[in-house]
Amino acid sequence: MVNIRRYENNPVVTTADVPPSREDFEVVCAFNAGVTSFGDETLMLIRTAERPAQEDGWVVFPVFNAETGETEVHRLRLDNPDLDVSDPRVIHHGLLRYLTSISHLRLARSKDGLNFTVDAEPAIEPASEYEEFGTEDSRITCIDGVYYIDYVGVSHLGVTTCLAKTTDFVTYERVGMVFCPDNRDVVLFPEKIGGKYAAYHRPAPRAIGTLSMWLAYSPDLIHWGGHRHVIEPRADMWDNCRVGAGAPPIKTDRGWLSIYHGATFDDWYCLGTLLTDLDEPHKVIARSTQPLLKPEADYEMKGFYGHVVFTCGTTLDGDRLRIYYGAADTVMAVAETSLSGLLDDLR
Amino acid sequence: MVNIRRYENNPVVTTADVPPSREDFEVVCAFNAGVTSFGDETLMLIRTAERPAQEDGWVVFPVFNAETGETEVHRLRLDNPDLDVSDPRVIHHGLLRYLTSISHLRLARSKDGLNFTVDAEPAIEPASEYEEFGTEDSRITCIDGVYYIDYVGVSHLGVTTCLAKTTDFVTYERVGMVFCPDNRDVVLFPEKIGGKYAAYHRPAPRAIGTLSMWLAYSPDLIHWGGHRHVIEPRADMWDNCRVGAGAPPIKTDRGWLSIYHGATFDDWYCLGTLLTDLDEPHKVIARSTQPLLKPEADYEMKGFYGHVVFTCGTTLDGDRLRIYYGAADTVMAVAETSLSGLLDDLR
Repeated sequence: MVNIRRYENNPVVTTADVPPSREDFEVVCAFNAGVTSFGDETLMLIRTAERPAQEDGWVVFPVFNAETGETEVHRLRLDNPDLDVSDPRVIHHGLLRYLTSISHLRLARSKDGLNFTVDAEPAIEPASEYEEFGTEDSRITCIDGVYYIDYVGVSHLGVTTCLAKTTDFVTYERVGMVFCPDNRDVVLFPEKIGGKYAAYHRPAPRAIGTLSMWLAYSPDLIHWGGHRHVIEPRADMWDNCRVGAGAPPIKTDRGWLSIYHGATFDDWYCLGTLLTDLDEPHKVIARSTQPLLKPEADYEMKGFYGHVVFTCGTTLDGDRLRIYYGAADTVMAVAETSLSGLLDDLR
Repeated sequence: MVNIRRYENNPVVTTADVPPSREDFEVVCAFNAGVTSFGDETLMLIRTAERPAQEDGWVVFPVFNAETGETEVHRLRLDNPDLDVSDPRVIHHGLLRYLTSISHLRLARSKDGLNFTVDAEPAIEPASEYEEFGTEDSRITCIDGVYYIDYVGVSHLGVTTCLAKTTDFVTYERVGMVFCPDNRDVVLFPEKIGGKYAAYHRPAPRAIGTLSMWLAYSPDLIHWGGHRHVIEPRADMWDNCRVGAGAPPIKTDRGWLSIYHGATFDDWYCLGTLLTDLDEPHKVIARSTQPLLKPEADYEMKGFYGHVVFTCGTTLDGDRLRIYYGAADTVMAVAETSLSGLLDDLR
């Protein structure tokens, strides 16, 4: 059994630590942060979900308008018979879908990786028609000194993955859309494999197919192909409904180690480990049968969307692996384990 | 109103014209052919759907096994309470999906574009784990003297689009998977745009999003990115549920002309026309408000899956445009119109 220890002062970031981006919005979730070591600091790009004040008898929700460049406030009457707001995350209005909140990415810095200071302004926020419902879960991968940030862009056209890059975490250059709908949980490998960039991704097929992890290659980080299936959900296990990459893969002597997430049909999200071939990372060497981390703590069980632990990034210091994770879709937490221990467990 | 004329001897290919690939299979559909002019001939790569003989009390269906290289015959008892065979195309077995038939691509040749001779053997047939349920609807695009054939590969992992190429329609080189699940209705443009190859594609998002046509670019025809949305379904029209590219786009003075398909929520499939910008073909110049072709003829209304007209290819001779189309998911038919007439209609 792997020894994993939650930080005693979890959560490390809550909504109270994140000032809203405008006065009429409240921050409802600060979670699923991309994470990287940068100089002597640990940086997080926190998915910060905001919404306008609610009004009696209405659901009030934000939508970014790419033509005006403004985030607008929309309202629908709760007694509308075509309306379903039973999912706290999604508004079903007939065939239309909206999100109850809009997310941007907010930078937070820490010297010790445990105590974070959150910027006052967004780092990456909705800027195109493909981001009208928000810019969500990011992953950060440093390749040859450049920090690539992939993030989810959501609109009524679908759930896409877009790419930005930075060298200083002050200015960010948008590269564009890299995976078309539906695709999220994209993690870039930190180096080329066989002469090409590589990524795990998680398409969400509609008619036939499972919510599986796939591998793709790219000559330039923009254009992706050569898709290979990696892992799919396992019947009767903690990852029986969906799986997706979590943190960017870590290179080890024995293969690429990934912390991934799996969920059940009733949306319990756990973390697990996956070891894949160094040269052909669609080939699985080992996969944890038990969850590495499952929702147990109060801040993991209760929140905007309960019983969820979900990682988008880790930091490695010698053998000490810190796993940063969103808990209950509401806050950021951290757990610590040893890389060698994870690898031993996968023997 | 556009003048379009069905060929009086439609259909031009029926299942009776296509010998089965093995003695214990019957051909149930010969439809949705990719089409090209090649030398003095018109060639079709016909989607040929086959199934084993059915047995009382059972549904009997084919699945390609990539490990053995053989197509195996599977059986499920019809009184199985988890079984749903109400859709003639798909078997629902609990959470699992199978297809009732398995498709390969079969070459047919014609000197006059109307009378076709069908090869005895498959041209492209299932060969990988991503094709266990078949190789389906193809499109053929000639770029710089090479004929690129994209086709749909279906497996329990999802609906993907794969690429092959040929210069002689005798041997075919497989290039690999170009679009991950769910993606079909991929058409390559016949030339580079802005220095890159281009394609329309039709992802099928699961959670949020419509069944829309998208554009993507590629440096090498293998890796795709820079995705842009093109058109989505239109409420209260003949294409209110789904749209997808049909035949590869035709370059005209006024823009790229595409014959696309649209369907309603009760699965009536019609053809329409779309004119897009020559340099930025995600920008729509015009789109037909009325269907160019809608199911009316007996062979379009009745068959394996009725009220469907669906094109994967055209041929152009001067101003005469021949639209080849699958009818009722069962046979191949052809209709003739004038390119200038289509363009006039889009003014």
